[in-house]
Amino acid sequence: MLHIYKIGGGILDKLEQLRIFLERFAEIQAPKILIHGGGRSADELLQRLSIEPKKYEGKRITDEHTLRAVVQCYAGELNKQTVAMLQAANCDALGLSGADGNLLRTQRRAVGAIDYGFVGDLLPSGVNVRLLQNLLDLGIVPVICAITHDGKGQLLNTNADSIAANVAVAMAQADSSRAVTLTYCFDKKGVLRDVHDDSTLIAKINRDDYARLRSQGIVADGMIPKLDSAFATIEGGVQSVSLQHALLVGSEVRTEIRAL
Amino acid sequence: MLHIYKIGGGILDKLEQLRIFLERFAEIQAPKILIHGGGRSADELLQRLSIEPKKYEGKRITDEHTLRAVVQCYAGELNKQTVAMLQAANCDALGLSGADGNLLRTQRRAVGAIDYGFVGDLLPSGVNVRLLQNLLDLGIVPVICAITHDGKGQLLNTNADSIAANVAVAMAQADSSRAVTLTYCFDKKGVLRDVHDDSTLIAKINRDDYARLRSQGIVADGMIPKLDSAFATIEGGVQSVSLQHALLVGSEVRTEIRAL
Repeated sequence: MLHIYKIGGGILDKLEQLRIFLERFAEIQAPKILIHGGGRSADELLQRLSIEPKKYEGKRITDEHTLRAVVQCYAGELNKQTVAMLQAANCDALGLSGADGNLLRTQRRAVGAIDYGFVGDLLPSGVNVRLLQNLLDLGIVPVICAITHDGKGQLLNTNADSIAANVAVAMAQADSSRAVTLTYCFDKKGVLRDVHDDSTLIAKINRDDYARLRSQGIVADGMIPKLDSAFATIEGGVQSVSLQHALLVGSEVRTEIRAL
Repeated sequence: MLHIYKIGGGILDKLEQLRIFLERFAEIQAPKILIHGGGRSADELLQRLSIEPKKYEGKRITDEHTLRAVVQCYAGELNKQTVAMLQAANCDALGLSGADGNLLRTQRRAVGAIDYGFVGDLLPSGVNVRLLQNLLDLGIVPVICAITHDGKGQLLNTNADSIAANVAVAMAQADSSRAVTLTYCFDKKGVLRDVHDDSTLIAKINRDDYARLRSQGIVADGMIPKLDSAFATIEGGVQSVSLQHALLVGSEVRTEIRAL
């Protein structure tokens, strides 16, 4: 069994919620990996430096200034603060960027209609499974930030959801006897029939359910790429993918994405 | 054999010199550890954020703003840039702060006449020798920045020279059959009789030489604590401590500090 958790901005930006999440995460008694995004920290730093964050259709464009800020915030402050808090909770966490131990090797995204700048896209083949396995064998809990490298000395900004999915698939495919679970933690209980009503949580979604929920407009907008990726991850060999409220980690309250 | 190198501001602030140093460091064919300071990067970030760096008798006072900046710069940008450049040079580097894997546990410095803020002082007993040995056994090259933690969730700024000395002593004492060397890399060839004349390099200094050089005023100012620490490190069981120009790493041009 290997449990992989991803936390994003909604939690990282609230120190008290992050602390509660990390205490619950620390209590999980199984090999585990934590992957974190960056939240608003880099935008805030850029703002304080009077550098305008650049975006295109909601996606960040990582110019040189932005890359410095995301490396400082994600690999520096957020990663080390998270690791220190986990250590305080008796969890032997060790923080990693994708450059560390050649953990995550990416290629800079090709310039098409738009140049996203210093952004790298990850494939399962770019995940150093052996390093993760070696660290897990030592009882270490890897805490991975969303910074990767190209192997030629260039750091690259990378989508944290995508890192989580690719790490999960790579770890599942490296050892088919091991069940890998992936949990996306955010600030909702999971997929809700009514986004304003927590009691309408959908416990399980398979491909047929997904098609129906999309046609009904219940799954829309940002949830579509998340669920598309979740199904791809299941089909890549990961046993279970869930969406869960970060403060309910360890409980059964969640939406589980299932192959069948 | 285990070689420990420390690089400081004079090199870290010059990207091209850092690259040359790292390429030479990558070529050293023995287990090795790199420890780096921070240079001017944190001061520059603070300046850009219009926060005045606080110092007392030349020593930095680490208030909350400064701690954020040093964690962002040392553990984030500098550490990951260094690791990415080493990976590009086929050196399997992995960056660590003292919180990662509980590598370096310190206590916040007691408030005396002056409050240095979020600063931690290290002892050899605070070094997680087992983690370093495990990583070295995996063929990994640890790259350690000068940020530590108190085990209760607080990150602390720590002197990089002191980390280098304490890591070297702890590694030497953990396995007395292993020879440990420590090299302080900076922007001079070593200890010079005439600080303006590179040809006056002193190749070896023992305790008697040191007393003489001090009485003659040849060793003065910032070199005194460096050499005091070097002798303490030798007496702690480290086989050899050297001062060397960062661009001459791997060569025999150096000042070696010797017990006898």
